Amino acid sequence: MQDLKHVYISEISKYAGRDVCLKGWLYNKRSSGKLHFLQVRDGTGIIQAVVFKGDVDPETFTMADKIPQESSVEVYGTVKEDKRSPAGFEIGVKHLKLVSEAMEYPISPKEHGVAFLLENRHLWLRSPRQHAILKIRNTIIKTIRDYFNNNNFLLIDAPIFTPAACEGTTTLFETEYFDEKAYLTQSGQLYMEGAVMAFGKVYCFGPTFRAEKSKTRRHLTEFWMVEPEMAYYDLNMDMDLAEDFVETIVQSVLNANRAELGLLERDISKLENIKKPFPRISYDEALEILKSKGKEVPWGEDFGGDEETAISENFDGPVMIHRYPAECKAFYMKQDPQNAKLALCVDMIAPEGYGEIIGGGQREDNLDLLLAKIKEHNLNREAFEWYLDLRRYGSVPHAGFGLGIERTVGWLCGLHHVRETIPFPRMMERIKP
Amino acid sequence: MQDLKHVYISEISKYAGRDVCLKGWLYNKRSSGKLHFLQVRDGTGIIQAVVFKGDVDPETFTMADKIPQESSVEVYGTVKEDKRSPAGFEIGVKHLKLVSEAMEYPISPKEHGVAFLLENRHLWLRSPRQHAILKIRNTIIKTIRDYFNNNNFLLIDAPIFTPAACEGTTTLFETEYFDEKAYLTQSGQLYMEGAVMAFGKVYCFGPTFRAEKSKTRRHLTEFWMVEPEMAYYDLNMDMDLAEDFVETIVQSVLNANRAELGLLERDISKLENIKKPFPRISYDEALEILKSKGKEVPWGEDFGGDEETAISENFDGPVMIHRYPAECKAFYMKQDPQNAKLALCVDMIAPEGYGEIIGGGQREDNLDLLLAKIKEHNLNREAFEWYLDLRRYGSVPHAGFGLGIERTVGWLCGLHHVRETIPFPRMMERIKP
Repeated sequence: MQDLKHVYISEISKYAGRDVCLKGWLYNKRSSGKLHFLQVRDGTGIIQAVVFKGDVDPETFTMADKIPQESSVEVYGTVKEDKRSPAGFEIGVKHLKLVSEAMEYPISPKEHGVAFLLENRHLWLRSPRQHAILKIRNTIIKTIRDYFNNNNFLLIDAPIFTPAACEGTTTLFETEYFDEKAYLTQSGQLYMEGAVMAFGKVYCFGPTFRAEKSKTRRHLTEFWMVEPEMAYYDLNMDMDLAEDFVETIVQSVLNANRAELGLLERDISKLENIKKPFPRISYDEALEILKSKGKEVPWGEDFGGDEETAISENFDGPVMIHRYPAECKAFYMKQDPQNAKLALCVDMIAPEGYGEIIGGGQREDNLDLLLAKIKEHNLNREAFEWYLDLRRYGSVPHAGFGLGIERTVGWLCGLHHVRETIPFPRMMERIKP
Repeated sequence: MQDLKHVYISEISKYAGRDVCLKGWLYNKRSSGKLHFLQVRDGTGIIQAVVFKGDVDPETFTMADKIPQESSVEVYGTVKEDKRSPAGFEIGVKHLKLVSEAMEYPISPKEHGVAFLLENRHLWLRSPRQHAILKIRNTIIKTIRDYFNNNNFLLIDAPIFTPAACEGTTTLFETEYFDEKAYLTQSGQLYMEGAVMAFGKVYCFGPTFRAEKSKTRRHLTEFWMVEPEMAYYDLNMDMDLAEDFVETIVQSVLNANRAELGLLERDISKLENIKKPFPRISYDEALEILKSKGKEVPWGEDFGGDEETAISENFDGPVMIHRYPAECKAFYMKQDPQNAKLALCVDMIAPEGYGEIIGGGQREDNLDLLLAKIKEHNLNREAFEWYLDLRRYGSVPHAGFGLGIERTVGWLCGLHHVRETIPFPRMMERIKP
């Protein structure tokens, strides 16, 4: 019996009618006299294992009655088709082996507070809801990497330790670096600009950090960002790529994760609508939309979460807002040749109030304009000499963007808060476990 | 002319006989009277663009004569088969457009010191050698992610900010985390152990950090590591997976990167030999090998770089050394049931003196033994309560390993030093650019 082949629940349909061994954990159970119905999970799925008194030795029957939730167990039995079960199959148990008996499990089916669940994140991960979210996260990340591999981008991992800030210093995490100071990266963009002059099309994909003292539902201190950068691209080409990229991600999740979206009770029709082209509006047009809703924003100010939500209400899918006032955007944004007050930048706002998922645009490729911007922003020119080199030796029009993974997961899963979108979330007041 | 389709050099063979536009940089040139031969690179390859006086307007011919190295340029012309060129094609130029004239380029074909090249890493990346290395790095990373996706592993990104040390505190980078201290992760392993009880087979793949005050050719302060973890796996299954994984990576690079390996003058025959099964020797057998070479190591001591190199000389490919003395290994290693002095761990040593590329093993799944180890190692038990939970609620045999990306890149590329294996290396005395 113990020689039976170990199979995973996700591949159980291949073993219909055969005797197999499952290795997993007891997720739940119910009993009725001569029958115990064990819900067994192994990380790839959940299946019902039926223990009938007449089929097993007395020890197995007793064990099936007493085994506590989350105990680890090996199940030996026959794979039987069962149209009523979600898996389509159940196991007719012949023998059980208790691997380790669990102590009383702290997470019960009753509602728990979020603080308690976060404190027990290592156990909370075992719930079907967290499974569904992290499987969707896995699909999103796989799709992103496949997308860039298939489109001849080269992966260029950006450094985490940086000597200078990319966008302001107030939200930087600082660390002693031997006899110097180092800062944890907030974006790989400047490095991608360096690499793109060597490789044409590049991307980085790694963790980034912001020491923001904010406890909103959209903020993590540590989050993953993917940042493509393309040589010889202008703002329009950048927007073309961004919308194709986001459409690809959404369609890929719809293809791969119907079951998970169902478990999360996500309104799938809202996602099925996400097809390019996405609407493109200027900052000025966005101001008009806000005005029509009674939200006056003075020209020159950036939008916050409230404004993004208000604008997104006018659209079924993501909307791209381009050409913000240069004064509210970073120094490296390219000046609009049509209007020096505007930057050739773009933000993509997710629908349904999920906020900004992409920020990007064309980069300033003119050495003199860039030098003026560095001065205007009171940045330390010396720290940017290498970056200025990129305009000295073969400057070209180039553009790129960054997409935040956790906000994208939150949007596609329909989650209220980003804390569930990453396996071990880090927030202002949360660094454990 | 300016309406011609923009194509990349990597796809030039599809356009034989047609007029196209290339957008890139001048890598090199030579002239002979009525002909200028421009070597143009666009990040996907290098191609020769031939400017014949009779074919172009005078401005283009003059420009071709004067354009400095690394200037950005658009080349309009006809794709012609040319058996003598490495690309198999050249461009018969009809028109050139200078996008940006480069200042005098600081990196010339003459030899430069490593410090100078590292200081100019953003420009050094443009060299064919760095291209070759980073394309091989790209293949390795793609292969790793495909491998785990194809084998039903779930990606579980481990946190970078951690509250406690996994392996000692002397080499930790520390940062202020609002009102607390946080440390940059040295390994995602403990988190993978948590996740594997939820998902069965998981992996993390991200940057890890060691503040080691060592300037050897094998050390970076920031390096990427991939760490799979499997529930219901013992040490032997762990070694089976490790050798299959490494074989897959090596064969994938051989398939995808013959040209790059050639450019690096890598002895390919050494890599073609890398086929599983890999030899497995015990720590005691490794001691015998060292003794036979006149290197006596007292039983109980771990091996350093010198010992690893000496052992690797006895093998054509990677060798796995298992069952080290528990006293020289981390607290979480599972005690060998056959001999309590040994740990069920494994290190994989690359051939040709490239050192340890994998460290891993089976984890202690017995709560009491683990508690004793935490006490013995003077670790703060409270910080590990969540980790101990994994032995309280359904403990199972489990195992995993970590593979260092940069050492793997260094080995496969045949590099003396790891500093070239990552786009922007971080070492004790190097944090710029």
